[in-house]
Amino acid sequence: MQRTLASQLAQVPPGETAKVEGWIHRRRALAAVTFVVIRDRSGLAQVVVKDPQTVEQVAGMGEETVVEVAGTVIANPSAPGGFELVDPTFELLSEPAHTPPVELWRPTMSAGLPTLLDNAPVTLRHPRSKASWMLASASMQGFRRALTEEGFTEIQTPKIVGTSTESGANVFTVDYFGQQAYLAQSPQLYKQTLVGVFERVFEVGPVFRAEPHDTVRHIAEYVSLDAELGFIEDHRDVLAVLRTAVDGMLTAIAELAPAAVDLLAVELPTVPDQIPVIHFADALKLVGAPEDEPDLAPAHERALSAWAIAEHGSEFLAVEGYPMRKRPFYTHPQPDDPRWSNSFDLLFRGLELTTGGQRLHRYTDYQAALAATGQSEEPYAGYLQAFKHGMPPHGGFAIGLERWVARLTGAENIRSARLFPRDLNRLMP
Amino acid sequence: MQRTLASQLAQVPPGETAKVEGWIHRRRALAAVTFVVIRDRSGLAQVVVKDPQTVEQVAGMGEETVVEVAGTVIANPSAPGGFELVDPTFELLSEPAHTPPVELWRPTMSAGLPTLLDNAPVTLRHPRSKASWMLASASMQGFRRALTEEGFTEIQTPKIVGTSTESGANVFTVDYFGQQAYLAQSPQLYKQTLVGVFERVFEVGPVFRAEPHDTVRHIAEYVSLDAELGFIEDHRDVLAVLRTAVDGMLTAIAELAPAAVDLLAVELPTVPDQIPVIHFADALKLVGAPEDEPDLAPAHERALSAWAIAEHGSEFLAVEGYPMRKRPFYTHPQPDDPRWSNSFDLLFRGLELTTGGQRLHRYTDYQAALAATGQSEEPYAGYLQAFKHGMPPHGGFAIGLERWVARLTGAENIRSARLFPRDLNRLMP
Repeated sequence: MQRTLASQLAQVPPGETAKVEGWIHRRRALAAVTFVVIRDRSGLAQVVVKDPQTVEQVAGMGEETVVEVAGTVIANPSAPGGFELVDPTFELLSEPAHTPPVELWRPTMSAGLPTLLDNAPVTLRHPRSKASWMLASASMQGFRRALTEEGFTEIQTPKIVGTSTESGANVFTVDYFGQQAYLAQSPQLYKQTLVGVFERVFEVGPVFRAEPHDTVRHIAEYVSLDAELGFIEDHRDVLAVLRTAVDGMLTAIAELAPAAVDLLAVELPTVPDQIPVIHFADALKLVGAPEDEPDLAPAHERALSAWAIAEHGSEFLAVEGYPMRKRPFYTHPQPDDPRWSNSFDLLFRGLELTTGGQRLHRYTDYQAALAATGQSEEPYAGYLQAFKHGMPPHGGFAIGLERWVARLTGAENIRSARLFPRDLNRLMP
Repeated sequence: MQRTLASQLAQVPPGETAKVEGWIHRRRALAAVTFVVIRDRSGLAQVVVKDPQTVEQVAGMGEETVVEVAGTVIANPSAPGGFELVDPTFELLSEPAHTPPVELWRPTMSAGLPTLLDNAPVTLRHPRSKASWMLASASMQGFRRALTEEGFTEIQTPKIVGTSTESGANVFTVDYFGQQAYLAQSPQLYKQTLVGVFERVFEVGPVFRAEPHDTVRHIAEYVSLDAELGFIEDHRDVLAVLRTAVDGMLTAIAELAPAAVDLLAVELPTVPDQIPVIHFADALKLVGAPEDEPDLAPAHERALSAWAIAEHGSEFLAVEGYPMRKRPFYTHPQPDDPRWSNSFDLLFRGLELTTGGQRLHRYTDYQAALAATGQSEEPYAGYLQAFKHGMPPHGGFAIGLERWVARLTGAENIRSARLFPRDLNRLMP
């Protein structure tokens, strides 16, 4: 007999036999009947056991045991999906499972985050944990789809690198055949270089930060959604592509993960056709901060988001023109006032979601920028070669996948948005 | 004026003005005229310069200089794409470029592979290098699309791990906040664990092998296309999904990268509806090898591929049942004869393309397998937890992206199929 997924039971004509396969999600033994809920990749299916021999058999199958159940489909409005299996026969597909460390059948797991993470191989099976990752998975698909439609090429750049990308800080070192190498903190230098090859590139892959702070916002390894494009006017062209990417991510979530959106009660934002933009200098004025502040404080970001909703009806706000002195050496200055940069932060629901902007594209500008920051050219030889041999005006952005998902679900800790987080104290499981 | 891509010139009504942007791919100064070929992400466009002032201006713009060119579109059957720009005006989009280390305009670059790799930021711009990566990019898309349609969920698993996956050998070590960690050699343990969560999973991401041999087949970092699925009968179900994935990759190449296929004269194979299968024991007999051989030699693989074409008209052949003693500890034995395994190699054009198979799924089987190979359970605690708490029969496979592309293009060295390869002697660029 062919397998029927839990979510497909409604399509089986009532009275016919169906076979489901999955994990025993919950087992509830009453006096005259045992209810068994089976969990598979599509959802939950209820099985009603009355036959005494089967009741006894099921008594030996603890929660998380993997079984195959054949039974008669009947309608029952109070069962998940509106249908259930009666007169079932059970068959083990593995050994009876040990009792899980956390009860997975409860609507919300009662253990604290450290316990959940210590037991991730099992606790990720909880429908809410699973749903959170379904948002991540759909987001990656949406990001790729939106950019592919815009003529971007997917790239895969090295994660073992000879030069630390952003600075020497927070970088993991690797023993590379006896030589010191690093784990890439971002694909920044490579994605820029590859604008020289493909004009428009994106990458979805791991980045590594040896972040010495144990906070709810930091993890040592995360997924970065990177894009970079050439032949732009300035950073506003980059912002327009970022808008397309975020819109594509949200569209994909709505299309591919509606059950996860429902279960987690996620309110999907609308991306306006034009994301409103405010200059950093105006943003400081708006929030009443001193005009020489080099950055926005969290309270400022919240105030600016509130302003964007009130003024523009937008949950997204781009702040452009961040002071050059706070931006990396490859940042392009604002042409009419080099104190400011052609870069932006995108705020979403009161927090910075991503940073983007225009980069320098002239070889001589890079030489000057490295000299001005006291860096030697030698570690950047490969990168500089791209500029020496012709690069167009270009820019890009990077979105942290876990940060994005945590923002959507309202998770307090970014670790909840990753399958097996790594941090200062956690290298396992 | 809006930018027109080189490939879109044919859509501009002849006599109208168009603007192209790109790199000066080639410049040829004759007595009365200078021909300039512009390269952009879509292809090549020819520009004919006759005006003496413009000829002089263009003389200062070496190859790889990034320019914007506006001119009148006219038909010319001998120009790339059948159209060219005349009466052009040129504008620099960057500084004039330094002369490239290798002539990119020649149909094939004349330098040796080490020179090409040393100068990858520039040599990757060559249409043939670019085309090779377009096959890789399309393959990733096809892989994901085919598996998503089959109900698979995309995962992203940690690359910094506390336990080396396959064995202690060939693993890179990372200084993880003063503790020793490793770079994942494969997502094997995590993808199996996540079958417990999502049933069907795939991952496209980097894997790391500290491969101490400097050969044309080995690189230290490559992209692995991994899949794993639960609720299977045996390894034949895994092979059926592998067939779907490979077919999806080829379909995507034909659809998304036809120009690359043409340029590189790639002959795309047809994947038969059922990939022919031969048992390892029968394969040894067929090639006349002793029956206690533990593996197939390269000559055997070539002979078997030739046999599959002659006998089944198939460029793909699966060899199943490899001896258990040559397979990793999580391999599922062949139920009726535990000398053999429920695993397979897929041969393509005389070489092994990928390995797959059924895994053990019972906790007690893992305990026994680790004990039998003299390994302690402790480093595998997280992995084992998944089995302790219920796992279905499952299996999977992994395809090396670069190996796949090299096989398609007939590249002699796998390094040609990667953007910035890493090996024993190469950590830059």
